Amino acid sequence: MKAERIQSSSHMDLVSQNRCFGGTQSVFRHRSEVCDTDMTFGLYLPPQAERGSVPLLWYLSGLTCTHENAMTKAGLQAHAAQHGIALVFPDTSPRGEGVADDDAYDLGQGAGFYVNATREPWKAHYQMYDYIVRELRALLQGAMPVSGAHGITGHSMGGHGALTIAFRNPTLFRSVSAFAPIVNPTRSDWGRKQLLAYLGHDESQWADYDASLLLDRLGWHGDILIDQGDADQFLDLLKPEAMAQVIAAKRQPATLRMQAGYDHSYYFVSSFGEDHVRWHAERLKDQ
Amino acid sequence: MKAERIQSSSHMDLVSQNRCFGGTQSVFRHRSEVCDTDMTFGLYLPPQAERGSVPLLWYLSGLTCTHENAMTKAGLQAHAAQHGIALVFPDTSPRGEGVADDDAYDLGQGAGFYVNATREPWKAHYQMYDYIVRELRALLQGAMPVSGAHGITGHSMGGHGALTIAFRNPTLFRSVSAFAPIVNPTRSDWGRKQLLAYLGHDESQWADYDASLLLDRLGWHGDILIDQGDADQFLDLLKPEAMAQVIAAKRQPATLRMQAGYDHSYYFVSSFGEDHVRWHAERLKDQ
Repeated sequence: MKAERIQSSSHMDLVSQNRCFGGTQSVFRHRSEVCDTDMTFGLYLPPQAERGSVPLLWYLSGLTCTHENAMTKAGLQAHAAQHGIALVFPDTSPRGEGVADDDAYDLGQGAGFYVNATREPWKAHYQMYDYIVRELRALLQGAMPVSGAHGITGHSMGGHGALTIAFRNPTLFRSVSAFAPIVNPTRSDWGRKQLLAYLGHDESQWADYDASLLLDRLGWHGDILIDQGDADQFLDLLKPEAMAQVIAAKRQPATLRMQAGYDHSYYFVSSFGEDHVRWHAERLKDQ
Repeated sequence: MKAERIQSSSHMDLVSQNRCFGGTQSVFRHRSEVCDTDMTFGLYLPPQAERGSVPLLWYLSGLTCTHENAMTKAGLQAHAAQHGIALVFPDTSPRGEGVADDDAYDLGQGAGFYVNATREPWKAHYQMYDYIVRELRALLQGAMPVSGAHGITGHSMGGHGALTIAFRNPTLFRSVSAFAPIVNPTRSDWGRKQLLAYLGHDESQWADYDASLLLDRLGWHGDILIDQGDADQFLDLLKPEAMAQVIAAKRQPATLRMQAGYDHSYYFVSSFGEDHVRWHAERLKDQ
């Protein structure tokens, strides 16, 4: 399916489209059934998508971000064009009038934490786990020139999303990596507050959204790539040591890189973006 | 001079600093004498600057931009790190309380057009030409590990700035390129309004700020690289045909590339950023 045909999709409105590294960076808006509101996402199709379906790499963003931040700042399109893979940049929460929110930057809009909320006032719209895993994935595979070979990555809260979604859906995702992910939210102030709000007091419900607990319980069929800056101002909240401990105990194939001097910013993500895109491309094209 | 020493400079305050592609992306604020206000700029130093002085590529930004847009969106640091050159991202105008402004996006703050204003209310602060050519250049050479080998590029209004500043200062700049530059502002609605406001009714004063007129009058000692998207929504205002005509008439060595499908956005700049940085690096290291 060629890019020109996408515009006519009845499922989505094309918000913007820009030529980028020989491919196309688009933004779409669509009605989400599971979030019961409009949702916006960015999609990069490399030049190779003009000739057939290409693998798809999901990039989940962090707290306060929309679909737009990584799309404009992470510089991943250059590498996606080189390797012939598509990129999708979902939003980080439902948004808009009638969607519950909170004054804090780390709860509510911009902070969906990729969970299916079960508590008021969140459950009506905050169904980001199902939105990613079921709805948006099906929408993309039906309407875009993307193959069934999917990888997933993300930054910070989005790294948490990438790891938890991959570990719980090993048949849907072939490769997983993360930039400075929140890996143990059930024991972090970036996690406990939100899991309590979205899921309630029964902490056994939280375990499905904790990458370290999930890896320990479920394992992972491939290797894992995680980059972390050692000058990250949020290191205490991310808890990379929790994931490292599970990886060691389980003998899980993984590459954890502590990068000297890097902080939590997009400068960190962009500095290692080429490595991650190549890493996914190798695994997505290999099968 | 090493990066650590920069923080102690009495001339500048360090606003932020991030590790980026093995080098350092910093933002500085300093008191500008020629603009009589505080000015902010971004500076990227590649890893090679830890071991000695490196060439410097100036990137001048377009209308509505600050020092920050290209720094976060153009993805040039990856290429600068690869080639061992520094990048400076100046602001596009003086700013702040007491600095004249206009409600229009294309006049006043964010729209300095890289001229020395001679008219009220602009002349007190709008001295962007001297700020770039004299003050900031001297400041950087005195306080940063940059050599005397300077190149200059820019986007849109910043492309206009790059071309006009280079053509008028061939001993200070060894290489020049531009992305979708305004090349004939004396005959464009992106130019006539601003030159009238900043310089007054005597159009003979405007000629010093028109790249096509300057190239015709002064020539240029090297070759010139200009990229332009053929889907640029502002093509009629940029007037690439005016520059092409002078280049043909003068037999000026130049590469003008009309890039199919690209618009005026940073996606266009980032798509060809690698080419421009390499092009400058080759010319700055060659001498």
